[in-house]
Amino acid sequence: MIEAAKTLDGWYCLHDFRTINWSSWKTLDTDKQQQIIAEFEEALASWENVEAEGQGSHALYSIVGQKADIMIVLLRPTMKELNELELAFNKTELAEYTIPNYSYVSVVELSNYMAGDSNEDPYQNPHVRSRLYPTLPKTEHVCFYPMDKRREYDANWYMLPMDERRELMRSHGLIGRSYAGKVKQMITGSVGFDDWEWGVTLFAEDVLQFKKLIYEMRFDEVSARYAEFGSFFVGNLLKKEELLTYFKI
Amino acid sequence: MIEAAKTLDGWYCLHDFRTINWSSWKTLDTDKQQQIIAEFEEALASWENVEAEGQGSHALYSIVGQKADIMIVLLRPTMKELNELELAFNKTELAEYTIPNYSYVSVVELSNYMAGDSNEDPYQNPHVRSRLYPTLPKTEHVCFYPMDKRREYDANWYMLPMDERRELMRSHGLIGRSYAGKVKQMITGSVGFDDWEWGVTLFAEDVLQFKKLIYEMRFDEVSARYAEFGSFFVGNLLKKEELLTYFKI
Amino acid sequence: MIEAAKTLDGWYCLHDFRTINWSSWKTLDTDKQQQIIAEFEEALASWENVEAEGQGSHALYSIVGQKADIMIVLLRPTMKELNELELAFNKTELAEYTIPNYSYVSVVELSNYMAGDSNEDPYQNPHVRSRLYPTLPKTEHVCFYPMDKRREYDANWYMLPMDERRELMRSHGLIGRSYAGKVKQMITGSVGFDDWEWGVTLFAEDVLQFKKLIYEMRFDEVSARYAEFGSFFVGNLLKKEELLTYFKI
Amino acid sequence: MIEAAKTLDGWYCLHDFRTINWSSWKTLDTDKQQQIIAEFEEALASWENVEAEGQGSHALYSIVGQKADIMIVLLRPTMKELNELELAFNKTELAEYTIPNYSYVSVVELSNYMAGDSNEDPYQNPHVRSRLYPTLPKTEHVCFYPMDKRREYDANWYMLPMDERRELMRSHGLIGRSYAGKVKQMITGSVGFDDWEWGVTLFAEDVLQFKKLIYEMRFDEVSARYAEFGSFFVGNLLKKEELLTYFKI
Amino acid sequence: MIEAAKTLDGWYCLHDFRTINWSSWKTLDTDKQQQIIAEFEEALASWENVEAEGQGSHALYSIVGQKADIMIVLLRPTMKELNELELAFNKTELAEYTIPNYSYVSVVELSNYMAGDSNEDPYQNPHVRSRLYPTLPKTEHVCFYPMDKRREYDANWYMLPMDERRELMRSHGLIGRSYAGKVKQMITGSVGFDDWEWGVTLFAEDVLQFKKLIYEMRFDEVSARYAEFGSFFVGNLLKKEELLTYFKI
Repeated sequence: MIEAAKTLDGWYCLHDFRTINWSSWKTLDTDKQQQIIAEFEEALASWENVEAEGQGSHALYSIVGQKADIMIVLLRPTMKELNELELAFNKTELAEYTIPNYSYVSVVELSNYMAGDSNEDPYQNPHVRSRLYPTLPKTEHVCFYPMDKRREYDANWYMLPMDERRELMRSHGLIGRSYAGKVKQMITGSVGFDDWEWGVTLFAEDVLQFKKLIYEMRFDEVSARYAEFGSFFVGNLLKKEELLTYFKI
Repeated sequence: MIEAAKTLDGWYCLHDFRTINWSSWKTLDTDKQQQIIAEFEEALASWENVEAEGQGSHALYSIVGQKADIMIVLLRPTMKELNELELAFNKTELAEYTIPNYSYVSVVELSNYMAGDSNEDPYQNPHVRSRLYPTLPKTEHVCFYPMDKRREYDANWYMLPMDERRELMRSHGLIGRSYAGKVKQMITGSVGFDDWEWGVTLFAEDVLQFKKLIYEMRFDEVSARYAEFGSFFVGNLLKKEELLTYFKI
Repeated sequence: MIEAAKTLDGWYCLHDFRTINWSSWKTLDTDKQQQIIAEFEEALASWENVEAEGQGSHALYSIVGQKADIMIVLLRPTMKELNELELAFNKTELAEYTIPNYSYVSVVELSNYMAGDSNEDPYQNPHVRSRLYPTLPKTEHVCFYPMDKRREYDANWYMLPMDERRELMRSHGLIGRSYAGKVKQMITGSVGFDDWEWGVTLFAEDVLQFKKLIYEMRFDEVSARYAEFGSFFVGNLLKKEELLTYFKI
Repeated sequence: MIEAAKTLDGWYCLHDFRTINWSSWKTLDTDKQQQIIAEFEEALASWENVEAEGQGSHALYSIVGQKADIMIVLLRPTMKELNELELAFNKTELAEYTIPNYSYVSVVELSNYMAGDSNEDPYQNPHVRSRLYPTLPKTEHVCFYPMDKRREYDANWYMLPMDERRELMRSHGLIGRSYAGKVKQMITGSVGFDDWEWGVTLFAEDVLQFKKLIYEMRFDEVSARYAEFGSFFVGNLLKKEELLTYFKI
Repeated sequence: MIEAAKTLDGWYCLHDFRTINWSSWKTLDTDKQQQIIAEFEEALASWENVEAEGQGSHALYSIVGQKADIMIVLLRPTMKELNELELAFNKTELAEYTIPNYSYVSVVELSNYMAGDSNEDPYQNPHVRSRLYPTLPKTEHVCFYPMDKRREYDANWYMLPMDERRELMRSHGLIGRSYAGKVKQMITGSVGFDDWEWGVTLFAEDVLQFKKLIYEMRFDEVSARYAEFGSFFVGNLLKKEELLTYFKI
């Protein structure tokens, strides 16, 4: 019997990708456009309050290429709150001028592969808490992709003994740590919530570091033999105070 | 010659996923919106009568993320009744403001892997009947996904001897049972009815239990070697009395 | 050199799946709706004449789930006639209120795996003729799916010797025959005509027999090792005299 | 080092599949419809002139099933001319009433697997020229599909020695030749031009010969082990003088 | 531990594919059309200035077949500038008459497989700089496709030793070099930026050279065993001074 990995789970997470319907947006006069942006800025302001109170976090990025125009990331303590925010956004006027492209439902996750042997409740550990309930960094760039571990004859992650998985993850983690200060990562688990097993959200000031990190990891056995990747999204920070410019025709 | 599994089959089941067309919904005035919701509430009330009479069951959930806004699950004694309910819904005014995303056609199924040796007609057994003709629990959360058993060279479920399949399913079932009281599951068979072999519908008050259960099972050989999974949908209970709020602009 | 299977080929076959555009249908007044249905009933009546004269056959079913609302099956002596019927339907008023979902082009096929050694021309054999040029049964339920035989390293149907294929098909056919009286099947070949190698159309009064038959066959080596399946569609008979009710808002 | 196949390349080829938007077409009055058809007939007439002058060729077929309503095949000496014809068609009024379904970009190709040892320039050989710059036959039926040669561990066409590929192609060609007089084939290469490596366009008076030829070939090792197939399209000749009837409501 | 490849990275790159919505374009009068083209010509002129100053580059091609009508390639020093250009284009009037088909986000990349042993900073090497920050050639034809290196049991590029990868890439490069003067290639890396690992953009005066080069490479082990390819796009140069003709109805 294979020993299952254990996880620590934090805030629930929704990645919401949308394209702006520029053709219909342009039919609006400037006053109407500004009013719609103002309504969205209010939503952002209320999210900022939630973030300031440590009750959640969020991020807004402009995505490069046709896969989407914007990505909203939302972190909240319950799945219900995520759903309420999504519903509220769908009811805004701005939403009428967006087309949904892709979304991802998950929960912030720490695995026990790295865990030390401790009797302490990890949910009380401040370092663990800061990773389970993170304030998303407002770096210049973001990268998101979902992924699976393979379950193939010659490469079945889920049939490897715990010790082997732990050792593989340890060496994988070393690459990640060598990018400390350059790339921040948030792993969210999505088994039972969405179509892949994990979502990976990376934050960096230098967009090239995403490519360097992921390419280097690809030569590591965990990626090379055991990883399947979904679509990759890359984007630039979109600040609340840049919204009027972003949407200005 | 491989011995085929035998099944007990109960009510027919339709999972119906839809997105609300908020843009067109908003063009309606409040009176019209309330009238449309009232028509849908009447349908729900009639479904509740059927459920109270033990002639079927249903559930309504709000789905998180862009895959769908709502999921309706319908259980009925015949495929014809399912089709009639679907047709009736398509003729409602609410349906005009929804966009179909995905559906799943199946029948509640119990396999004989767990069956004891009994001469009794299982269809007369009250415990079996309660599982074949279930009243769907109205838990806070739902999870749905379709799945197949693999037919690959190195992992061909359908060419394993019955004894081996039964033993594998037994140990798989032990994991499920360890979640008793936390997660309720309904297995529906869809061979010949839809594109995957089974649908799995899980109910829980704590949404995290879906992830814990499915992740733990993934390390079990039945999932690790023999399972292929379709899309995962997760949602929150949407009560009849919450509909006006849900649809209120 | 592998001996190729030989086939007997009968009428050409079109499976045409469509969804009703209920939103636009509802914009019509009842008189207009009835006039459109009357036009479609006339087409059905002319198809019935063709069927009565043994020059073709057809079936009309209501499909369960979102994959389609209706399926029309048409059998005709030539590919050209099929195309003409399709074109004629596209020009009807009803077609304007339907959205094409899926179609399948094939020809009724009998393989020589079962053939005895005979000098007689099989196309003169009344039993063979009744299967190549069938009048489709008007059973309560229908099931349709396309399929391929695998061409993989460890399971390449097309590289098996004829004797082995014949023996495998013989035992596969035994399962089918055990459902005689419960399920009628029509095999249509589509190599060169559509994306899969065969279409399977099953007819039954009890919809559960589709699932029982296909699930039992899945444990048989022909399916377990060599079959790939496309989408499954299941439906209920839609009689000409039920059309007004079906389309009534 | 594996010896690469050499090719002789002729005219560039565009397969253009379109569905008629019957709903919008019907909104036109008969005069307007006839005027639009007349514009398209003029284009066809100019293509016929090009064909008569040996500067290209074309074909127009009605496709069976929902994949498309019509297929236009265009052969021209340069990729630029193909693109110009495509652009010109997109600017016609008829194009406004069509919806693009699929297209294929390729070039007529002869491989050197069959070539004899000759010092002569094959591009001067009249037989070769007639195949590289063909006038498309106006047979009753057409069949089109794209295909690849596999690059798998156990079946990697591109790692077989030239002699083995040549021998395999030779025996494959024997099947094709046994259909001489029944089926004419045009092979077009699309490496670097479209998503598959080749397009196969077959012409026949008897549509059943497509199925017989392709099914027989499937048991031959080149297809059985090394071929991957895309979508299959089958159609009936649509003559210029039939256009008014075809489009008449 | 496998040694990861190192890369040199230059300008960021966006390939943007769009279809012209001819139906809506035709609703405009000629004056309006010319005004819209003039706005786009201004954008092109400003891009030409950037190119002249060595601060970026661009290309505009007409794509053959239904995958797209036009492809814009943009090279800029930062991901942010790419995103700004994309946003600016989306706000032009022309964009309203285009439908996005596909896009690709990447960065010009040179790998170290070919690198000599030098202590010199390659980013100071003029030859390297001309390849990292290239002015795109305005050849008659372009070819674009994305690709991956396989990570399969029997063919896992990322688990080969560096020496073996370097030797394989060397012999692969020899084929490329034999097309010097005929085909120019730009490799862009997209790990972390888009769904494939690399984009390949080829430029040639003779479109047939794309097919010859890629087909010859397919017999080379790097392609034959280790490459997976995405969609192929092929096109013809569309000059600024041809735009009025291209868009003229």
